[in-house]
Amino acid sequence: MNLNIVLFQPEIPQNTGNIARTCVLTNCKLHLIKPLGFSLDEKHLRRAGLDYWKDLDLSVYESYDELREKYKDSTFYFSTTHAENLYSEVNFKDGDFIVFGKESAGLPDAIRESDPERGIRVPMIKTTTRSLNLSNTVSIVVYEALRQMDFPNMK
Amino acid sequence: MNLNIVLFQPEIPQNTGNIARTCVLTNCKLHLIKPLGFSLDEKHLRRAGLDYWKDLDLSVYESYDELREKYKDSTFYFSTTHAENLYSEVNFKDGDFIVFGKESAGLPDAIRESDPERGIRVPMIKTTTRSLNLSNTVSIVVYEALRQMDFPNMK
Repeated sequence: MNLNIVLFQPEIPQNTGNIARTCVLTNCKLHLIKPLGFSLDEKHLRRAGLDYWKDLDLSVYESYDELREKYKDSTFYFSTTHAENLYSEVNFKDGDFIVFGKESAGLPDAIRESDPERGIRVPMIKTTTRSLNLSNTVSIVVYEALRQMDFPNMK
Repeated sequence: MNLNIVLFQPEIPQNTGNIARTCVLTNCKLHLIKPLGFSLDEKHLRRAGLDYWKDLDLSVYESYDELREKYKDSTFYFSTTHAENLYSEVNFKDGDFIVFGKESAGLPDAIRESDPERGIRVPMIKTTTRSLNLSNTVSIVVYEALRQMDFPNMK
């Protein structure tokens, strides 16, 4: 397993679907923190065409604390537009966790500020109030981490 | 303007919408080659919530040849799973064109093979017949190019 991708309370099923696909194709584990804006039951997944879901390494948690407690000794990064560091300036390694907030509101302050030095930001032009699509942000950060790790077992 | 993103006959409106958003947020120009799998008329765009469309630098072409003819002297890269080079191994520069194929079928052989040395590939694990979502692929390649260019006017 290369990296751990955490989605905090994701709202839009298409985004989580695309991120799940990215995880399968990059050997990353996906961690989802409830509540989710969609159902994970088999009927819904089949209807949404998520044929790759069976290949996904997935865990679902009742709360962020439950996840954090389980992986006490791991390195956690937090994707947020408020961070000082660019995502390309940190040195990712095998097994790192990268946490992404919900589409409408990003990460709650309490999580974001739990370790400000681990905040990472994808730079954007400030012409609009909009941000990148969530699944695009995840792809950009995951592939930068994998690039740094020389794409293990992927080339 | 940083880069030129070309979508060859894109089929799925949500993908082009997300890519348009990425272009606005990164100061890239978007070039669409017809036929498109959706309508560009204002009523449709408004209904799809593409409020950033007005900030997009966009050109639409009847054919790939029309685009190629217009930008004879530019460097063109072609995103394809068949390429030798990884997308992270080439040296992108200001004004380069990056061409992406349609969701269902990628780029036609004639375009892909027009300059095989300019093919670029995003590596993936070969566990499934699926590829990355198109808008994710575009984001990954665009942000690698921008990273190499040190994120002009974006930090």
